[in-house]
Amino acid sequence: MSISLNDQALDQLFREARSINVWEDKPVSDEQIQALYDLVKMGPTSANCCPARFHFVKSDAAKARLKPLVMEGNDTKVMQAPVTVIIANDMDFAEKLPQLFPHNLDAKSWFADPAVAEETAMRNATLQGGYLIMAARSLGLDCGPMSGFDKDAVDAEFFAGTNLKSNFICSIGYGSSEGIFDRSPRLAFDDAAKIL
Amino acid sequence: MSISLNDQALDQLFREARSINVWEDKPVSDEQIQALYDLVKMGPTSANCCPARFHFVKSDAAKARLKPLVMEGNDTKVMQAPVTVIIANDMDFAEKLPQLFPHNLDAKSWFADPAVAEETAMRNATLQGGYLIMAARSLGLDCGPMSGFDKDAVDAEFFAGTNLKSNFICSIGYGSSEGIFDRSPRLAFDDAAKIL
Repeated sequence: MSISLNDQALDQLFREARSINVWEDKPVSDEQIQALYDLVKMGPTSANCCPARFHFVKSDAAKARLKPLVMEGNDTKVMQAPVTVIIANDMDFAEKLPQLFPHNLDAKSWFADPAVAEETAMRNATLQGGYLIMAARSLGLDCGPMSGFDKDAVDAEFFAGTNLKSNFICSIGYGSSEGIFDRSPRLAFDDAAKIL
Repeated sequence: MSISLNDQALDQLFREARSINVWEDKPVSDEQIQALYDLVKMGPTSANCCPARFHFVKSDAAKARLKPLVMEGNDTKVMQAPVTVIIANDMDFAEKLPQLFPHNLDAKSWFADPAVAEETAMRNATLQGGYLIMAARSLGLDCGPMSGFDKDAVDAEFFAGTNLKSNFICSIGYGSSEGIFDRSPRLAFDDAAKIL
């Protein structure tokens, strides 16, 4: 049986972690990106379908491709952050199920309906995006997740000829305390939850 | 600047954590559920929209309502687990933005298009579902997330007269090592990720 992580870890993961708007000039290495993926990949998905694809925009050339496709304000962050990940849903994820879900070789057929496949890809790739945020924080990295970008344009620029659809983007690195919003209020338990 | 959590914590959150199929007969208290929510609520969402609603199915009476609405196999888990959370998307989440996003009182208008609201609710409530899994594991609890249930029937039974739509369900408690699948393979870095 596991026990609770200590307060310092809970602070780092949840209570004190903040979405970053200004980034320190300190790189994230390819080895850190690999270590991050090695945690993220372990998170649970439905039938282990693992539909998220992660494109780590790190080089100046790749950043220059992404910059004009994001909202004003986010462009500065993309250029400044050491890495910005494009989290994408692979609509063809079921093709990999014979490898990923050897318990049941029929699993691929469960997602033959494109609407089911699309919803499954969206739900599970987004969960994997959540694991990415928590894994980055676990490794001592800060995150700046963003939805403000032109998804069709990103898909055309980065995913032409594939069945990947961008979901959200997330800068990763070492955040400056500068430019962080005051902490916004959260919903009280009774406004967001019920015990039945 | 944060540093990496230690290996024991990374194991507990990612590497050694497993989806549970058989539950120990050990309760989860209302205080634990409150502590869980107090971590989950801190996770980032777009414009702090916090669209997830969490219904913790804990009493025998509530479990009996959920049991007939889940897939064969999942019904036993729902009855055996101390708690099963229904994670739902609140399609009316934008109503709370004047409270949740005081930085910009126009934020509510960004989600006036129902398609934008639906996609935002789905993405961000699912992220919050991912935070729930990671928060539970942080507190030493095990998870058993499930998509195999009749969503329309759950919405009719639990959310009639509201604009909540069920997303996925997740049992929470203390898992038995019994009934755990062999660890399924994960995609190699190059099959799921790229550094650009």
